[in-house]
Amino acid sequence: MEGDHITTLSTPVMVVDVDIVKRNAEKMREHWTKLGVTLRPHMKTHKTLECGDIMTGGSRSCIVVSTLAEAGFYADHGYDDILYAYSVPFDKVERCAVLAERLSLFQVLLDHRDALEQLRKRPLTDRRVWHVWLKLDCDNGRAGVLHSEPEALRLAQAISESEGVELTGVYAHCGNTYGCRGAEQIHAVAHETTTLVLQFMEKLKAVGISCKSSIGSTPSCSQPISDMAKLSEVHPGNYVFFDVQQSVIGSCGLEDVAVRVLSRVIGHSPHRNQLLLDCGWSALSLDGAGKLPTGYAVIEGHPDLRLLSMTQEHGRVEPLSGQLDYSRYPLGTLLTIIPYHACATAMMHSVYYVHSGGRLVGKCSPGGNQPEQSWTESLITLKLK
Amino acid sequence: MEGDHITTLSTPVMVVDVDIVKRNAEKMREHWTKLGVTLRPHMKTHKTLECGDIMTGGSRSCIVVSTLAEAGFYADHGYDDILYAYSVPFDKVERCAVLAERLSLFQVLLDHRDALEQLRKRPLTDRRVWHVWLKLDCDNGRAGVLHSEPEALRLAQAISESEGVELTGVYAHCGNTYGCRGAEQIHAVAHETTTLVLQFMEKLKAVGISCKSSIGSTPSCSQPISDMAKLSEVHPGNYVFFDVQQSVIGSCGLEDVAVRVLSRVIGHSPHRNQLLLDCGWSALSLDGAGKLPTGYAVIEGHPDLRLLSMTQEHGRVEPLSGQLDYSRYPLGTLLTIIPYHACATAMMHSVYYVHSGGRLVGKCSPGGNQPEQSWTESLITLKLK
Repeated sequence: MEGDHITTLSTPVMVVDVDIVKRNAEKMREHWTKLGVTLRPHMKTHKTLECGDIMTGGSRSCIVVSTLAEAGFYADHGYDDILYAYSVPFDKVERCAVLAERLSLFQVLLDHRDALEQLRKRPLTDRRVWHVWLKLDCDNGRAGVLHSEPEALRLAQAISESEGVELTGVYAHCGNTYGCRGAEQIHAVAHETTTLVLQFMEKLKAVGISCKSSIGSTPSCSQPISDMAKLSEVHPGNYVFFDVQQSVIGSCGLEDVAVRVLSRVIGHSPHRNQLLLDCGWSALSLDGAGKLPTGYAVIEGHPDLRLLSMTQEHGRVEPLSGQLDYSRYPLGTLLTIIPYHACATAMMHSVYYVHSGGRLVGKCSPGGNQPEQSWTESLITLKLK
Repeated sequence: MEGDHITTLSTPVMVVDVDIVKRNAEKMREHWTKLGVTLRPHMKTHKTLECGDIMTGGSRSCIVVSTLAEAGFYADHGYDDILYAYSVPFDKVERCAVLAERLSLFQVLLDHRDALEQLRKRPLTDRRVWHVWLKLDCDNGRAGVLHSEPEALRLAQAISESEGVELTGVYAHCGNTYGCRGAEQIHAVAHETTTLVLQFMEKLKAVGISCKSSIGSTPSCSQPISDMAKLSEVHPGNYVFFDVQQSVIGSCGLEDVAVRVLSRVIGHSPHRNQLLLDCGWSALSLDGAGKLPTGYAVIEGHPDLRLLSMTQEHGRVEPLSGQLDYSRYPLGTLLTIIPYHACATAMMHSVYYVHSGGRLVGKCSPGGNQPEQSWTESLITLKLK
């Protein structure tokens, strides 16, 4: 209950340090405010109102989401200026239209002429226009039309010239920063992506088109280069929590990671020189593939332990070397796990327990994990017999 | 809506073929009824009332679960004779006691003397006793006291002799069948585990103890050996859905797999010879580590495609060889994905859409994914500002 120490919680459980969340959010906000670049934080890592409020400084405006369920969740709770940064899926155009007609500003993204055609076939009511970002692949290996393809410029022109549609901006996601190790490598990717986006903006200008530009990823926005000040927006998300992966990349230190999975020792396997934890992939996810020197995660305060493997509800822990001293880990011992990938771990939890200095201050729930159906409310009685 | 074809659903979405579920359940039930062995189906794969009803033939009795949240969910819906087959966690003893005092039969499991001590310290009211299974590791590499350790027999005796505690049975889980390829290898593991359990039962008999015996795993229960007829119970679970992994192991054919993730093409990346799908690890999980010849899953009807990698909301698909013919996969094309591991995929979905012959008959929701807290009902207002 409120005020209790997090160690009183039943495990496995995900806990969030609200002070670190605030510090991470503030640092990112201050930084981009100074540079005069709009920070449009991504909600996909946490999907909560509480963290959304912290990331937007309470404005409930100017966010990016990656599913329409998230968009609907935030819209239902008073958020506006929402960018659905996902190549607009054809089965969701009508629901996008409804949001676009309901919010002050709902923006979509596309990277293909057929998607533009889908939008044109569904003009918005009330003199509204589709606000469209063009997704550009700047050698990032993700979605997007390749920056160097002539089609990229032609598609931008087509968007810009279409009735009922406006080219709002050019959006690139430098997700290839996730392969970086250290600031220098991050800078190189950030530089390349920024340069390619800015060059594309020049090409647009040359044909009389002006619009916004945005690049993202937590690594590049945590270790930015000066040219990024020439962009209109940035759209990082993971920085609210950070994780072991981000510390390995060089976006943060482990002390900046706001989330933990609390776990307890539930078994001794001396015949395998292992401990069993009550934390399996159902609490942590399999992200990272166990490739850290300490396996699937970092066990806080126990650099000598490796999370070797997981089943649905069990984690197998072994020492990096030598024999386990089981007297140090009696059954019931609490072990604190720093997740490899906070986005993946958070998705395994329907509630996050929030603390300040180890004392519980509340809990919050992700709201965008609902299925992507328009008819979820109409419960069909299941006839299985 | 009911009667609509599953292809009308928004994607990504998990669909369940109810006819295959029934066939899988019936086959398993008939088989073990014939052999005179109690089938205690595991609920962890689906966690739904509907599939539980099918697996128990409507009796709502004699099930096994792996979390206390699942136990509570099934108990709340009229299920009884529930075995919580998880080394009883010290932080959950009191909640186990409450269930044991409430249900006709709630059974727990342990593999360590300290856990027995925890139960002894919490005697049940109303002349009830703790029904305890001893978890035995028969070289299976999971939880349990090693069968060959003298402590195994001593612990069984200690359980048997403790006041307020009853040794209900010996429980082994031959999870090492998951490393098998083909019936012959499965038979070898099933034979070894069964033999070791039966030998242990003989040792117990020699010291005057008689109790039940149970082994499990979908591979061994789908490809059983004759000696398994000497066991009291079996406890498989995954067979209700099956998956690609089980077909690779040899438990089933791909035609027995009841679950699919429906997905749509949302991007073309000709510069990488890839398609993008709207199915990332948030809809499929990362289980299997992409090691199938076709990557992270099998794309039904497209043996020439490989699900190469996933991010949170995207899947990258490439041809096994040669160049993609994009005209075969226009944006919006529906692709049907057979999951590698149904347990892991099901955990990513809060609703499963159920169909018969492709026509929707309803939906069902897993109920045991709630967090393991005793105070989830008391909502603490979150003060994040």
